[in-house]
Amino acid sequence: MSSMPNSPNIFNRPAPEDCIIVIFGGSGDLAKRKLFPALGNLKFKKHMPKNFQIVAVGRKPMESKELLSMSDYPSGFSEHFEYLQTDYTPEGIAKLKERLEVLGTEKKLPANHLFYLAIPPDGYADVAMALRDGGLIQSLDQKTWSRIVVEKPYGSDLATSVQLNKNLLSCFDESQIYRIDHYLGKEAVQNLMVFRFANSVFEPIWNKNYIDNIQISNSELLGNEDRAAYFDSSGLLRDMLQNHLMQILCLVTMEPPVTLTADAIRGEKVKVLQCLRPLDLQLEPPVAVRGQYGKGKINDKDVLGYREEKGVKQGSNTETFAAMRLNIDNFRWADVPIYIRSGKRLGRKGAEVVITFKQLPRILFNSAGHNVAQNRICFKIQPTEGIMLELTSKNPGQSFELSDTSMNFCYNDQFDTSAADAYERLLLDAVIGDPTLFVRSDETELSWAYLDPLIKHWEKTTMGKRFPNYDSGQNGPDAQNDILINGLRRWVDFSKYDNICT
Amino acid sequence: MSSMPNSPNIFNRPAPEDCIIVIFGGSGDLAKRKLFPALGNLKFKKHMPKNFQIVAVGRKPMESKELLSMSDYPSGFSEHFEYLQTDYTPEGIAKLKERLEVLGTEKKLPANHLFYLAIPPDGYADVAMALRDGGLIQSLDQKTWSRIVVEKPYGSDLATSVQLNKNLLSCFDESQIYRIDHYLGKEAVQNLMVFRFANSVFEPIWNKNYIDNIQISNSELLGNEDRAAYFDSSGLLRDMLQNHLMQILCLVTMEPPVTLTADAIRGEKVKVLQCLRPLDLQLEPPVAVRGQYGKGKINDKDVLGYREEKGVKQGSNTETFAAMRLNIDNFRWADVPIYIRSGKRLGRKGAEVVITFKQLPRILFNSAGHNVAQNRICFKIQPTEGIMLELTSKNPGQSFELSDTSMNFCYNDQFDTSAADAYERLLLDAVIGDPTLFVRSDETELSWAYLDPLIKHWEKTTMGKRFPNYDSGQNGPDAQNDILINGLRRWVDFSKYDNICT
Repeated sequence: MSSMPNSPNIFNRPAPEDCIIVIFGGSGDLAKRKLFPALGNLKFKKHMPKNFQIVAVGRKPMESKELLSMSDYPSGFSEHFEYLQTDYTPEGIAKLKERLEVLGTEKKLPANHLFYLAIPPDGYADVAMALRDGGLIQSLDQKTWSRIVVEKPYGSDLATSVQLNKNLLSCFDESQIYRIDHYLGKEAVQNLMVFRFANSVFEPIWNKNYIDNIQISNSELLGNEDRAAYFDSSGLLRDMLQNHLMQILCLVTMEPPVTLTADAIRGEKVKVLQCLRPLDLQLEPPVAVRGQYGKGKINDKDVLGYREEKGVKQGSNTETFAAMRLNIDNFRWADVPIYIRSGKRLGRKGAEVVITFKQLPRILFNSAGHNVAQNRICFKIQPTEGIMLELTSKNPGQSFELSDTSMNFCYNDQFDTSAADAYERLLLDAVIGDPTLFVRSDETELSWAYLDPLIKHWEKTTMGKRFPNYDSGQNGPDAQNDILINGLRRWVDFSKYDNICT
Repeated sequence: MSSMPNSPNIFNRPAPEDCIIVIFGGSGDLAKRKLFPALGNLKFKKHMPKNFQIVAVGRKPMESKELLSMSDYPSGFSEHFEYLQTDYTPEGIAKLKERLEVLGTEKKLPANHLFYLAIPPDGYADVAMALRDGGLIQSLDQKTWSRIVVEKPYGSDLATSVQLNKNLLSCFDESQIYRIDHYLGKEAVQNLMVFRFANSVFEPIWNKNYIDNIQISNSELLGNEDRAAYFDSSGLLRDMLQNHLMQILCLVTMEPPVTLTADAIRGEKVKVLQCLRPLDLQLEPPVAVRGQYGKGKINDKDVLGYREEKGVKQGSNTETFAAMRLNIDNFRWADVPIYIRSGKRLGRKGAEVVITFKQLPRILFNSAGHNVAQNRICFKIQPTEGIMLELTSKNPGQSFELSDTSMNFCYNDQFDTSAADAYERLLLDAVIGDPTLFVRSDETELSWAYLDPLIKHWEKTTMGKRFPNYDSGQNGPDAQNDILINGLRRWVDFSKYDNICT
């Protein structure tokens, strides 16, 4: 299907303009493992502008060669790449500015600058202000542009996120700020919108009249790994639910946007967040439960419990599992419970959105003695990406016995091109200036505002000996079933999606 | 899923009772190629009653061994099988009666008799009356039963079908008459009901609000073969449309039955036939077109035109292709055109039901410059059986370009047991006494009544030099597109379903 321009929207993307990409934290892990390889792939696939330069910025003395040693790069890529040792002091920023000017002259590059902050979040405001004070941020009325890309976490609660946004907005215009949520870069997540709004069969049934409940689940095999310094003071609610899962929730449940422009889409996401029923922490059954893993086995290997791990505070209260029941109080979703959960060190790795349709009436095939399974649509987001429609079908042969069957759509089956890496997609979007798949300040703040009471409540109530409450390699705490309502007694068995689309 | 009895319906089938199956035309092709092997398989799969006997009846002298030489049979099958040389004279029937009595005594078989008429239809009434006059038909109040199975054609127009039903009903009660439509024995056809009524996602969109048009198509590679004697005086309308395609149409469009009992289901099918808008043969665009194949190539082999074939009348007016546009004037289907077509010597073999959903509004992904394909559901009926849902999905990679993709459900993928042969299914149903998949007299008569004006009109207007109007091995006459309305300019390209579920 060819692309024809109409108004600027996700179809009609301008060609990327020549630019310089400045990566702060340029000697760090994220830059080396994700960003440079993504830029290399974009160049290889001829998606990058004709003329561009990457300036990796860091405090340590480094050789570019060393930075590019972790991956294969297309020939000629290293000519677009350099490392600049500097810091965020006025002198350090002046050095960067000078280098950018020299590159502009030498390489005939316009002053289009993408600043990517691959640094710890407590440095975001400092770098932004240093860039502003150093005269490196161009206002919107100039012909060339400045943009800044930041990574989660965007604050650690409502107050800090509001402060961070305030600080960033004292330097950049909202339209210059690209808050990455790498889940939005995943094909299956982007396809949520296409699936809903480009298919006439689903739109009519995408509401409370036909949908029984929605479940969004992220299961990880990994535990804390080497991230204790960050994770133990953050926890799963902040690390996964506040951002990734809430973003997916918005895409699944939002109203159709008026247009496919970034702000129309983000406006609809915001409306979902505005309709979230405030959490009532006194409610029974509870709206949220948490968990922390103890020791156990992952892939037949013994693993430590969370509290035994290096860098974790003694008797840590930090949750490594969280499950919540949400309600969206609007006409489309009134009374449809939405369950989201995420956990570390579970028995499997996978992220899924599962829409469960209402039970058939108790007639015909679903009459006494027979239980026809509810129809489901599963969007499998990782590790593989695909969509499954779970249906009831007749068993072949004599009589009319029924079976649960499924129709599957797998990316790797139906397309030659492999699904683009999320970072590739999002980096190019930032270069092009398409903010659709980035998170607007009001989205992050509304999400924090919603979760703030729960965050505070969990900080106040320590779990003590009630943690750990699940074994590594198992399915998470039993308590997760306590939040289910409307006769639902168990979560969907997500493991059934493991062998689909492999 | 286990089966629990409630009321007698398609779930709750009694066990087959011991019986004698009498096959008239027992030395004929249908019996040897289809019926005996189907009975053999039923025995092999342990579906047959414990005690049963097959009596193949024919005029020619024959050995049972010879009759069973065309297929493999399970061990011990031949002990259940015998050939009886006799005819339909009073003496012949008396001989049969005597033999059935002897078998009853010797083999301890109750007088449950299934009479299968695998003979030319002009003999149906004679055999039925001979059986009646010979005292071989038991009334409904007896403990043992008599049933008769007949094959299409059930008459050649309304008058003859009414006469045939009258004759049969002068011998048997309607509930004793099993009119086979072997399309109803196909898994994919039976699954139409399950798909519609055991899945909550489709029921809400199965109507004029969401469906644009319905197409039912049967394409054959074969031509007249050796059936000229029958086919040249019958034609495609009578041979395929009046029965198989109309039956499928009923299952696709009927209202949900009150129960899954045979008469509730057949009652709903009858209601569809009663709602068919009478054919207006003056209408433009026309409601029906016909075709006849000329010479051409099938599988790279030269083949003759229909009129050149042996047994075909010179300048024959018989159609080998027919296409029609139907309307069902009820609340569910008002204004939804339904297209059915069938043809011989086309470029491919396949039978499909394709439901095309309405075009998306001209917004979002379907806005100017983009044409999002309409969603479709295809029920593939033969040669392989499966269900495809055609959706629009995002291409992987940068930008939001869309592609047509499909989700497939294939019988041979999802079930170990191969789809039962249609004759197996239907023979067992007749033995058990489940008439659900057989055609009731009012169904055949209504279908004939609907088509009668067209049959008469085509007989009256000879095509002369306008036949042949399509080459063997091609897609049928161009005129088939003339019946399309509502902006539809071409039939669905059914060949795209050829490589699915293979």
